[in-house]
Amino acid sequence: MIIVMKSGATPADVDRVVSKVEARGLKTHLSTGEDRTVIGVIGHDPFSLRDAFTHDESVEDVVRITKPFKLSGREWRSADTVITLHGGVQIGGGQVVVMAGPCSVENEEMLLETAHIVHDAGGHILRGGAFKPRTSPYSFQGLGRAGLAHLAKARAETGMPVVTEVMTPSEVEFVAEAADIVQIGARNMQNYDLLREVGRQPRPVLLKRGLSSTIEEWLLSAEYVLSQGNYNVILCERGIRTFETATRNTLDIAAVPLLKELSHLPVIVDPSHGTGKWSLVHATARAAVAAGADGIMIEVHPRPDEALSDGPQSLTPQNFAALMPEIRAIAAAVGRTVAKPAAVTPR
Amino acid sequence: MIIVMKSGATPADVDRVVSKVEARGLKTHLSTGEDRTVIGVIGHDPFSLRDAFTHDESVEDVVRITKPFKLSGREWRSADTVITLHGGVQIGGGQVVVMAGPCSVENEEMLLETAHIVHDAGGHILRGGAFKPRTSPYSFQGLGRAGLAHLAKARAETGMPVVTEVMTPSEVEFVAEAADIVQIGARNMQNYDLLREVGRQPRPVLLKRGLSSTIEEWLLSAEYVLSQGNYNVILCERGIRTFETATRNTLDIAAVPLLKELSHLPVIVDPSHGTGKWSLVHATARAAVAAGADGIMIEVHPRPDEALSDGPQSLTPQNFAALMPEIRAIAAAVGRTVAKPAAVTPR
Amino acid sequence: MIIVMKSGATPADVDRVVSKVEARGLKTHLSTGEDRTVIGVIGHDPFSLRDAFTHDESVEDVVRITKPFKLSGREWRSADTVITLHGGVQIGGGQVVVMAGPCSVENEEMLLETAHIVHDAGGHILRGGAFKPRTSPYSFQGLGRAGLAHLAKARAETGMPVVTEVMTPSEVEFVAEAADIVQIGARNMQNYDLLREVGRQPRPVLLKRGLSSTIEEWLLSAEYVLSQGNYNVILCERGIRTFETATRNTLDIAAVPLLKELSHLPVIVDPSHGTGKWSLVHATARAAVAAGADGIMIEVHPRPDEALSDGPQSLTPQNFAALMPEIRAIAAAVGRTVAKPAAVTPR
Amino acid sequence: MIIVMKSGATPADVDRVVSKVEARGLKTHLSTGEDRTVIGVIGHDPFSLRDAFTHDESVEDVVRITKPFKLSGREWRSADTVITLHGGVQIGGGQVVVMAGPCSVENEEMLLETAHIVHDAGGHILRGGAFKPRTSPYSFQGLGRAGLAHLAKARAETGMPVVTEVMTPSEVEFVAEAADIVQIGARNMQNYDLLREVGRQPRPVLLKRGLSSTIEEWLLSAEYVLSQGNYNVILCERGIRTFETATRNTLDIAAVPLLKELSHLPVIVDPSHGTGKWSLVHATARAAVAAGADGIMIEVHPRPDEALSDGPQSLTPQNFAALMPEIRAIAAAVGRTVAKPAAVTPR
Repeated sequence: MIIVMKSGATPADVDRVVSKVEARGLKTHLSTGEDRTVIGVIGHDPFSLRDAFTHDESVEDVVRITKPFKLSGREWRSADTVITLHGGVQIGGGQVVVMAGPCSVENEEMLLETAHIVHDAGGHILRGGAFKPRTSPYSFQGLGRAGLAHLAKARAETGMPVVTEVMTPSEVEFVAEAADIVQIGARNMQNYDLLREVGRQPRPVLLKRGLSSTIEEWLLSAEYVLSQGNYNVILCERGIRTFETATRNTLDIAAVPLLKELSHLPVIVDPSHGTGKWSLVHATARAAVAAGADGIMIEVHPRPDEALSDGPQSLTPQNFAALMPEIRAIAAAVGRTVAKPAAVTPR
Repeated sequence: MIIVMKSGATPADVDRVVSKVEARGLKTHLSTGEDRTVIGVIGHDPFSLRDAFTHDESVEDVVRITKPFKLSGREWRSADTVITLHGGVQIGGGQVVVMAGPCSVENEEMLLETAHIVHDAGGHILRGGAFKPRTSPYSFQGLGRAGLAHLAKARAETGMPVVTEVMTPSEVEFVAEAADIVQIGARNMQNYDLLREVGRQPRPVLLKRGLSSTIEEWLLSAEYVLSQGNYNVILCERGIRTFETATRNTLDIAAVPLLKELSHLPVIVDPSHGTGKWSLVHATARAAVAAGADGIMIEVHPRPDEALSDGPQSLTPQNFAALMPEIRAIAAAVGRTVAKPAAVTPR
Repeated sequence: MIIVMKSGATPADVDRVVSKVEARGLKTHLSTGEDRTVIGVIGHDPFSLRDAFTHDESVEDVVRITKPFKLSGREWRSADTVITLHGGVQIGGGQVVVMAGPCSVENEEMLLETAHIVHDAGGHILRGGAFKPRTSPYSFQGLGRAGLAHLAKARAETGMPVVTEVMTPSEVEFVAEAADIVQIGARNMQNYDLLREVGRQPRPVLLKRGLSSTIEEWLLSAEYVLSQGNYNVILCERGIRTFETATRNTLDIAAVPLLKELSHLPVIVDPSHGTGKWSLVHATARAAVAAGADGIMIEVHPRPDEALSDGPQSLTPQNFAALMPEIRAIAAAVGRTVAKPAAVTPR
Repeated sequence: MIIVMKSGATPADVDRVVSKVEARGLKTHLSTGEDRTVIGVIGHDPFSLRDAFTHDESVEDVVRITKPFKLSGREWRSADTVITLHGGVQIGGGQVVVMAGPCSVENEEMLLETAHIVHDAGGHILRGGAFKPRTSPYSFQGLGRAGLAHLAKARAETGMPVVTEVMTPSEVEFVAEAADIVQIGARNMQNYDLLREVGRQPRPVLLKRGLSSTIEEWLLSAEYVLSQGNYNVILCERGIRTFETATRNTLDIAAVPLLKELSHLPVIVDPSHGTGKWSLVHATARAAVAAGADGIMIEVHPRPDEALSDGPQSLTPQNFAALMPEIRAIAAAVGRTVAKPAAVTPR
C-alpha cells in the first residue's frame, strides 16, 4: 500500500497519517519528493486501510500494490490445475474438451437425442440446464429435479460426464449428486452464499463470468469456492455486456491469455452465449481454441427453431458435426489435441 | 410480434412461415411491400415465437411490439403505488423519504450512535447491512443475525423503520421478521429463487438495480416479486457499470423519470453507491430529488475513515446534517415535502 | 511516479531500474518493504517513463501520482472561470444560463420562429447547427454557410448570442466569425487538429464530452484548446454510451460536481442528447441545475415531428416554456438565479 | 418501416398517422390485431420518417426493417472485395496479410531498423505513424511530414507497401502521396469531413473502428468513403471501450465473422491496441486469424521500453519473429495462406 499525500500537505499532515498507519501495527517508509510526500506502508496489505484516508484532505490517493486474490493466483500455485472427470476426461491439460448440449433439458426424449448427437460427433461432456435462470417470470423455468433424472439417463447411455447449473444453496446437494461438474451461471457469479456452498462439496465447479464482472472480481469469486476447500474450479468466459447490440454479448477473447497469466485454473469459452447468434459460433469457437482455451461449451439443439430457450444461438446437429474438425485443426495448430469422447462407462 | 421476411423470400417461404405461426394457434396478417413481405402476428405474444425463425434463411428479423412486463407496468396499474410503513412513513406519495445509516452494522454501539445521528438530522428510515455481499472472501462479511438484533434495538430506540439486505432464500424469514423493508442488493437482482422467496412474505421489498441491468430487466425482476403476490416493491437506482472509472458507478439519473413513465412503483436513488465518493453525494442527492425520486438512500458513518466497508462514500454526521436542508429546498422546488421523522413508536 | 518491483526482484534488478530512471535525469528514493521494493521517482513526471518498464520482468507496476492535465485543473487556477458573452450573458458565475434552439438550422423561417420562441420564454443563448455530423451519409447534412447567415439574422433580431458547431479546421475561421461560442461536438472531442485550431481563435469554445470519453480525457482535450492560448472553454456533459438502450445515452450527472472539484471551467448539461427522449428532458434538466451545472442546452423545435434531425428529443414551444419556471425554482433552491435574456443589442 | 400504434389508439388516430405518411408519397398497409394496429410503410425507407411520430401520443414505436448501409453491404455486392497493393500484396482474398511496424515513426534510423525486422520476419506491409493523435497535448505528437519521408525511404529499401494515418482533411493529399494505404484512426471514425476527403483520393483506406462505435455506425462511416467513389475500404477491429480495465480495450472478436456476413469489405484485426499488452498479442492475433480475419496489424519496436508511444503493447523483434509461424499455422488450419513478403520493387 502506498499513500500519496497532496502537494500542499504539511509535515504535521504527514505525521498524522503515519501515526494512523502505525497504530494498526504497520510500518511506514517516507519518500519526500519535490512537490509531495509518498508514504510506503510495509507489512500486511489490508483492504480497510485503503479506505481509511478518503476523508483526510491532505491525502491525494491510496494505491494498492498487491493482487487481492491468493489461492486462484499463479503466485500461489504456478503449475496449471488439471481436473480429471469420470471416464478420464481431463480439463486443463494438453487436450481441448468440448462441452455441448441443449440450453434447457426440455424432456427426456430430446435430451437423449441431443446427447447422442453430441457424443457421435465427438463431444466430451454433456451440458443441459434443469434449473434455468430466466429474465422473465413468464418464460420456461426448466424441469427442475425431473431434468436431473433425464441427465442421469443420458449420462448412463452415452458415458459422457454431465455439467448442469445450480441456482440456489439449498439445491446444491442434489444437483451435485447428479452432475459431474456443477455450474454457477453468470447471474450468480456474485451469489456468495451459493459460492460458499459449492465450495463445500466435492464436484468440480464451472464458474461463468458475470455479465459485467472484471477479471479481478471473477477470480475473487473463484476464491470464495477455493477458500472453502474445493480447488477444482473451471473459469468460463461467456461474453460481457457492452454498448454493442449486434451481438448478445461481447466475447472477451483476451480474457483467455490474461487468465492464463494470472491464474492456474482451467479456462473454457462459451461462444454460444458469447455471441448469441449461431452463425457466429464456428468462428468464435475456433478463436477461443487459438487463444489458448482449454475447451469450449456449445449449445446444440436437434431443432433450434423449436427450442424453449436460446434457439437463436444453438447449433443444429449438422453444424455441430461440422464444427468438430475445425476445432481439431486449430487445436493441432496450437500444439494441442482433441481426445476421443468417453466410452460408455457409467460411474 | 412482426416477422420481417428477407427481400428475396419467395411466396413459398412466406407460406411456410405463416403455417408455422398458425400451427401455434395464432393468426397472421400479410403486408406485402415493394421489396419484402411483413407478417403481423395477431394474438398472444409469446417469447418463444421470437426465437422460432433464427435458423430460417428467409426471415430477416422478428420484432416484439409489446412490453414484456405486466404487473409492474403503468398499463396494468396507472396510479402510483404508495407504501405505508410502520410509524406512518409513506414511500411513493407526495413526500420525499430519506433512508440513511451505515453500510454495515459493525457493532451495537456504532449502530445506535448512527441511528440517533440520522434521526436527529431528520432521516426517516434506518439502513444498515447485517449480511454483506463482499467482492473478496477476505473482507468483513457482516455480523449476520447479531446485526439484525442491533437493528431491532436501534429501531426501538429511535422509532425509525429499518431496511436491511437479505442475501439468500433460507434467510428471508428471519430477516423479514427484523426488517420493515427487505432489501435485495444489486448483485442479487437476478437471483430468481431469492426474488420468489421475498415475493411470498409480507414486507415491502427494496430492489436495487443490477450493475449492468437494463431498465427492462429490472422491471422483469420486480415482476418476479409481484407475481408471487407481494405488490410492495420499491425500485432503487444505485448506478450502473460503465467505462468511466472516476466514479465507482455511473448514476443513471434519467432512470428516475423513465421508470415513472413505465411503472407505478416508487423509485428511490442511492447516490452513495451511485458515485462512490462522499464529496459527490450532496450534488447527486439533490439531482435525484429534482428528477422526481421518491426518496434517497445515504450511507452515513460516525467516523468514515474507520468504517469496515464503504467509508469512501459515507457522509460524516456533519455532512449528513448539512444535506437535509438541501433536500428540503429541492423537494419544495418540485412541489414535494420532506416529512418529520417518525416519533418513537415501536411496533 | 512510483515503480513497484515484483516480489522476487533481486537487488540487481532494482539497481538496473534505478539506473534507467536516473539516466533520464530523475532522482529516485527506495522504500524496501517485507516482500518487495518500491522506487519513488522524484522530479518531473513524464508520460514516457510510465511505459518504460512494461517489458522488464522484475517490475510489477508503474503508478502515476499526479494528474495529467494542468491548465484546466483547479491546482493551476482555483477560482471559477467566468465567461462573458456579447450582451453581458455570463457563464460560470452565479447565474444559470439556458441555451436552446433547434438541432439543425433547417431554413431561415423556422430558425427565426424558434429563436423568438426561445427568447420569449427566457432563454439566453441560441443554439442551432449549420454543419451537422450525421451517422449516415444519406441523412440531412446541414445547410452549411447558408445556415450561419440565418443564425446571424436570428442573432440580430433577438439579441441572443449564438452557439454553433464547427466540424473541421478549415471552417473554424468563418464559423467563429458568425458565432459567439464555437461548439466542438462529441464525435470531434478528440479531433486534435480541430481543437488546436479553435484554441487559436478568440471565441469561447463549448466542448462536448465524447460518447466514450473519460473525465480525464475530456479535460485533456480542453487542455489542447487552453494550451493554444484560448482559456474560455465551457464543458458540456451530453451523456455517455453504455449498455442501456432505453435512453439514447446515459447522462452522467455525477460528472457535474466532479468537474467542479477538478477544474475551474464552466460546466453545462445537454439533457436532450443526454436522454434522447423529450419526455425525459424536464426531469434531467432540473437534475442538472440541482447538481450544480452552470447552464443547460436544450433542443427546441416548433414542430418536432417535422424536424430534419433529433425530433424525438426536441421540446415543443409549449414544453420549453413550461421548463423555464422549473429551472428558475431549482436554481433558487441551490442559491443561483436565472437572468433575464439579453435585450436586442447586436454587436 | 413499421409504425406500431398504442393499444388505446382510435381509428381517428390511425387515420391521422396514415395521412401523414401518405403525404410523403409513401404507401401504407394496415394490420389490425387484437389490441393494436400496425401500419406497414411501403416504399423508400427514409430516416426522417422514423422520428416523425415521437410526439404523437397514439404511436408506440416506429421500427426500421432495412439496414441503413448500402454500398458497404453484402446485398449491394455479394463477392468479397479484394484490394491489390503495390508489389502485388492482396487484402481480402485467400491470403492473410501481416501489417507491422512501430506505433510512431520516431526517427529515420529506428524506422529503417524496424522495417527490416518486419520484412525479414515475413511481414507484408509497414505501419508507422507520422501524424499521431495523442490524448495529451504534452505527449509526443509525431514527426509529421518528416515522418512521411522516413516511411518513403523504408518503403524503397524493403519494397513493403506502407500504411500511415491521416488526421485532418488538409493533409490527405500529401499523406496519400506517401502511403499505399491511408489510415483513419479510431478517434476519427466519425470525422465526416475527413472521411469524405479520403473518399475522393485513390489510395485504399484502412478504417479503424471507433472506441465506442457499433458495427452499424462503423459500416456507415465506411459508407461515407464509398459514397465518394473510393470502394477500397479495409475495416480494422482494434478493440472497444468497456468496463474492463485489465486490458486497454476489449477486442471484439465476433466482429470479424459478423462483418463478413454483413459486408464484402476486407477485415483486419489490431491485437496490439485491442489488448494494450504485448504479452496478450500472440494469443489474440492467432484468434483473429482463426476467426476469419484477412490480416493483422501488429506494433513492433526494436526496444519497446524506449518507445515514444505504445511501448507496453509493442512486440520486440524476437517476439514478432516468433509470432509469424504461429500465424502461418492458424492460417493453414482455416484454409488460408500467408504469402512471402514483397520483394524490393519500388513503385
